[in-house]
Amino acid sequence: MRRVDPAKIPAWLGPLPAFSRDRLEERFNGGDLLLVLQADDPLAVAHAARMLERDLRSFAELKWVQQGFRQARGSEATGTTMRNLMGQVDGTVNPDPAADDFAGLVWCDGSAAGESWLANGSAFVLRRTRMELDTWDQVDRPGREQTIGRTLADGAPLSGGDEHTPSDFDAKNALGLPLIPSFSHIARARSTDPNERIFRRGMNYDDGTEAGLLFACYQRDPLKQFVPIQQRLDELDLLNEWITHTGSAVFAILPGFTPDTPLGASLLA
Amino acid sequence: MRRVDPAKIPAWLGPLPAFSRDRLEERFNGGDLLLVLQADDPLAVAHAARMLERDLRSFAELKWVQQGFRQARGSEATGTTMRNLMGQVDGTVNPDPAADDFAGLVWCDGSAAGESWLANGSAFVLRRTRMELDTWDQVDRPGREQTIGRTLADGAPLSGGDEHTPSDFDAKNALGLPLIPSFSHIARARSTDPNERIFRRGMNYDDGTEAGLLFACYQRDPLKQFVPIQQRLDELDLLNEWITHTGSAVFAILPGFTPDTPLGASLLA
Repeated sequence: MRRVDPAKIPAWLGPLPAFSRDRLEERFNGGDLLLVLQADDPLAVAHAARMLERDLRSFAELKWVQQGFRQARGSEATGTTMRNLMGQVDGTVNPDPAADDFAGLVWCDGSAAGESWLANGSAFVLRRTRMELDTWDQVDRPGREQTIGRTLADGAPLSGGDEHTPSDFDAKNALGLPLIPSFSHIARARSTDPNERIFRRGMNYDDGTEAGLLFACYQRDPLKQFVPIQQRLDELDLLNEWITHTGSAVFAILPGFTPDTPLGASLLA
Repeated sequence: MRRVDPAKIPAWLGPLPAFSRDRLEERFNGGDLLLVLQADDPLAVAHAARMLERDLRSFAELKWVQQGFRQARGSEATGTTMRNLMGQVDGTVNPDPAADDFAGLVWCDGSAAGESWLANGSAFVLRRTRMELDTWDQVDRPGREQTIGRTLADGAPLSGGDEHTPSDFDAKNALGLPLIPSFSHIARARSTDPNERIFRRGMNYDDGTEAGLLFACYQRDPLKQFVPIQQRLDELDLLNEWITHTGSAVFAILPGFTPDTPLGASLLA
């Protein structure tokens, strides 16, 4: 069996630091090899997953499968931000792949210790996040909106504007109270450090008895980008009343491939 | 607790007769109340299911949830017959809702014993049908096509034509052998009795460890329509090598409703 060269292990490649509110279940944690299969058509995904699992079976065993979904293509205009099962617009403040700072946030450049093989790869964090939807239903609309800091209707920040208007965390109402509560999810998640951002690609899940979000994000370094955000949320976030992290995993995402450079060539060279 | 009037129980409303090849698991069997939720968008289905389950919780408990899928709208031309996880076009010979004989096959007319409340309702049969896809993969294309009696490419019967060409079970090749094998699935499923037909609305399922078809059909009387078909298949069908029925249920489907006639009015009157 081939052992991994310690010089090829990035500092962030391992379990995340413990968060006080985590209630992780081993059946949803970790793993050695991640396959992310996404498509508009569930039949194509099912077939591809089965073919890959079959081809892997001689040298790997299945630890977990977590199936997710988003709104079907065509049910909303293309480019519409997804909604999660709480009904919220989820993923508004995401780095724009066309923006100048996207590469530095999401793609590794191969310069960090242990990452020589990861240039143009990325780091992936998966957090299975159960939602307590029954009690969430009991919260009225203002309560839900203040928990998040955005309107339910269109995801606009409570400081005004539309979904993509920047949030004004200093804006106050006539009583002098912040329009976006200080303990709201978006107020706690935000950072003044422009490097402390992640590229989210979450999926809803509902296995018939439990539902929530397969929170997923890509970044260059989870310890510098995801972890400080999650530490703030773990410490204080109105949303914590209705969510519980029940699974957690970190994976390195290999650089892409070409006919001349197969997947994983930089790691196995 | 309200008891059901025995005069309101159709003869077919209960477990199906035993089939020799069934390997039923109680966790997928039966139940008192069925909700079928279908939509193009999985987010809408998840939300509706949760709202209904919540509203039912004070007087019912969940026995099972079986989640299915078909090809996403837009991935094939509208009206294309579904494919199942074996890759087959599945559901070609289905009664046409626009045809004159559809109502008599699918909708109850209220005249049979115990069915006075079921005029314009229907009978629903669900069969959870696990597929042995690993061994199915080992069968070559001619073997798969002869098992079903149709081509994989477009579902045309092996006697020729296209998907909707009627099967010619008498057609023979140069050696005098039937083009559609006598033990193939379509040869065994067919009946010369035009009343022995069902309206299929199956869905694929894949829970990550097991996959197959949630075979579902509507008919006026399962004992006269579904059961004789399934008895023939149970007795002999090349496809049996790769499928196992692991769940079974029969439900009465209430007639539709109007603002003046709520759902179930004819039963509870």
